[in-house]
Amino acid sequence: MTPAAGIAPDRPGEPIGIAAGGGILPRIVVDAALRGGWTPHVLSIADGIDAEWSGHPARRMAWGQLGDGLRWLGAAGVRKLVLCGTVSVRPDFRSILPTLHTLLMLRQIFAVIRGGDDNLLRAATKTFEARGFQVVAVQAIAPELVAAEGTIAGPPLQKDDEAAISRGFAAARALGQLDIGQAAVASRDRVIALEGIEGTREMLARVADLRARGRVGRHERCVLVKCRKPAQDDRFDLPSIGASTLDEAAGAGLVGIALSAGHSLLLGIDDIARGARAKGIFVVGRRDDRP
Amino acid sequence: MTPAAGIAPDRPGEPIGIAAGGGILPRIVVDAALRGGWTPHVLSIADGIDAEWSGHPARRMAWGQLGDGLRWLGAAGVRKLVLCGTVSVRPDFRSILPTLHTLLMLRQIFAVIRGGDDNLLRAATKTFEARGFQVVAVQAIAPELVAAEGTIAGPPLQKDDEAAISRGFAAARALGQLDIGQAAVASRDRVIALEGIEGTREMLARVADLRARGRVGRHERCVLVKCRKPAQDDRFDLPSIGASTLDEAAGAGLVGIALSAGHSLLLGIDDIARGARAKGIFVVGRRDDRP
Repeated sequence: MTPAAGIAPDRPGEPIGIAAGGGILPRIVVDAALRGGWTPHVLSIADGIDAEWSGHPARRMAWGQLGDGLRWLGAAGVRKLVLCGTVSVRPDFRSILPTLHTLLMLRQIFAVIRGGDDNLLRAATKTFEARGFQVVAVQAIAPELVAAEGTIAGPPLQKDDEAAISRGFAAARALGQLDIGQAAVASRDRVIALEGIEGTREMLARVADLRARGRVGRHERCVLVKCRKPAQDDRFDLPSIGASTLDEAAGAGLVGIALSAGHSLLLGIDDIARGARAKGIFVVGRRDDRP
Repeated sequence: MTPAAGIAPDRPGEPIGIAAGGGILPRIVVDAALRGGWTPHVLSIADGIDAEWSGHPARRMAWGQLGDGLRWLGAAGVRKLVLCGTVSVRPDFRSILPTLHTLLMLRQIFAVIRGGDDNLLRAATKTFEARGFQVVAVQAIAPELVAAEGTIAGPPLQKDDEAAISRGFAAARALGQLDIGQAAVASRDRVIALEGIEGTREMLARVADLRARGRVGRHERCVLVKCRKPAQDDRFDLPSIGASTLDEAAGAGLVGIALSAGHSLLLGIDDIARGARAKGIFVVGRRDDRP
């Protein structure tokens, strides 16, 4: 239950690498790193490759340039590296035109490209560590993002909501055990939807569609549960929500969101609280180790 | 592994009730019942409520008329009842305008409406049995539909396909243990999609979409696995495929389909074999009790 403690730079302005995928998380991490006295060096990857990082040392890295990207970080004196943001498009191994430095790492890259998301991140981490980088967790740089246990935002729970949360955790845990996904939507009586590789946003769009077609009862109180994987390495891919998740949950007619307390991230607590209030959706943290 | 043995009428032309939901299965069952010497009496329900059954004793039954429907079957001398076809739209309890006979069964109906699909069918079965009907399995009337172990149709497997099948069964089994769904799509390296309440057809449409957007590798060989639930009552809701499943699988770029041998249904083997050949998709039966 103890979230990773925050870490501080060894010296003021110590460089830190941010491998920045898509979504709002990389920007939150860069801001937190600045506040913490680091000098963030941004390596834009995957879904985040076209993001604009003016004002920061930054470089884009296509899949075929992993070796060069890491060399750039190393030359800048970076020793610590944070992986954050979404990586949704799977690299097609055959489409990679490797540079020389990347060619020397082909075996590791191939290992990274295969396997589930979790394997992918674990393999990437190993590769980085083999090159002398220390991979640190988002919450080590921004501990204020970690979800607490109990009520986080929004209205109080109604009587059957706790049963829906338990059901959702059971389903999400089962997915995690198989390294499939982290999220599920459930009501007191049944599981409505499960997250595969499509991600939470698209799963919630599906629930909205099912509801519009009468396949979810009008009065069926449904919750989104996001649960860390049982063997989760907390350094990457913690479950997370942001204000957009509240919008998507409202679109799906959900009454609440439950997260693994201590092991999931709130990307912008003020916006989340505002969204929860406006939409009448509760957000709670629950210990996920109860069966 | 032993599929339920077929049953014969006690006397030529013995009436049998067919509670007929949506899809092609009810018609297959009615034809098989006729061939077996039964007189099918069709109660159109749910997704099948608008189907045309001229030439057979038939009656539509809205959710509010359960009592009347069963009374009609009883008056026709029906003792045995088959539940088949899809029931995808969830009845909204508050929208039911019950008739007198149904009012007397309100408690049971309420139990039927709540809970997962499996609970729903189990509760419905209890209700029918309490009224003196014997609920029999589809495959008791049409044993030729049961999927055998081994190759059923289509091309031979390639080297990694068996690993994809195992992964898919592991995922589908986990869903079944939680009474969520019966189907998953997997490759050798990861699970792509899981079936919630949306059903197999919509899950496959999702995979087609993920593939179109580059989130499934172009060369990633994916299979659909449909697995009975571990605690499945084989009288209802066995996993099944039809020729349309082959079309949908082709649309999703799948290379094959694997089913629980002895505990799943092939709805129209000739059309399935033709589709498998035309699309180059294998169809195999596998014992699902291997870990």
